[in-house]
Amino acid sequence: MESDLKFFEEALIEAKKAYDKNEVPVGCVIVVDDKIIARSHNQRETKKSALGHAEILAIEEACNKLGRWILDDATIYVTLEPCVMCAGAIFQARMKRVVFGAYEPKFGGLGSLINLNELEGINHKLEITSGVKAESVSNLMKEFFQKLRNK
Amino acid sequence: MESDLKFFEEALIEAKKAYDKNEVPVGCVIVVDDKIIARSHNQRETKKSALGHAEILAIEEACNKLGRWILDDATIYVTLEPCVMCAGAIFQARMKRVVFGAYEPKFGGLGSLINLNELEGINHKLEITSGVKAESVSNLMKEFFQKLRNK
Repeated sequence: MESDLKFFEEALIEAKKAYDKNEVPVGCVIVVDDKIIARSHNQRETKKSALGHAEILAIEEACNKLGRWILDDATIYVTLEPCVMCAGAIFQARMKRVVFGAYEPKFGGLGSLINLNELEGINHKLEITSGVKAESVSNLMKEFFQKLRNK
Repeated sequence: MESDLKFFEEALIEAKKAYDKNEVPVGCVIVVDDKIIARSHNQRETKKSALGHAEILAIEEACNKLGRWILDDATIYVTLEPCVMCAGAIFQARMKRVVFGAYEPKFGGLGSLINLNELEGINHKLEITSGVKAESVSNLMKEFFQKLRNK
């Protein structure tokens, strides 16, 4: 979609916030009716919580804001392929669409470790767009891990 | 383990709290060093959040209490097989062990829809015990959905 790039840039801005906090740089925004209703970035170390991923924090914010747990009119833009936990949360929220950048080979839940959307028996189907600005995302990740190693 | 039944009973007490709130009756406790450090029950409707599952709420509490996101000394006792989101969260927290009661055929992530623990490439392995008091759990679930239909 035409507006995908615009919203993806906002997810990248979130990812850079994580980078500046020395967190693995992943960011996301959730969009309903062409408006950003929630945004967040990875804060696992800052919050010292296994649930501190960008998508979980943004889904919590979106549910709070809308006062409902079904977000079937929402699109989530996230810089990195959601992990299995976050992909599971996206299914639990019955989201309409996921737009992500680079693949996450280790624990990615939408094509890498597994593709939940293709599982036989899954009771919800997501529209998925992948590879958006994948090079920018990969460069940001590489830069982060380089910085970490130099420490 | 000998203490499994004792802790599982506590998870069942949590499930009954959900039942009394007209929530799908799922409960859990998290145990470290033979002590319950977090407990919760499903509150998806009450909290109007897709993240309102028992396990997510308890993992959040456990991380907050211990001030760390790695819970590799923890066992989670949960009445129903964790869904893919919750199983993913258990992996993200690197938990040591999962003890659950009945299987959850629709979205269960530890044997039903999929078994994340058996995925090729998964970078963490859980010890899993299933089937604990499965009949009590199934009866509670059946009773709940019967109550729902009668409304």
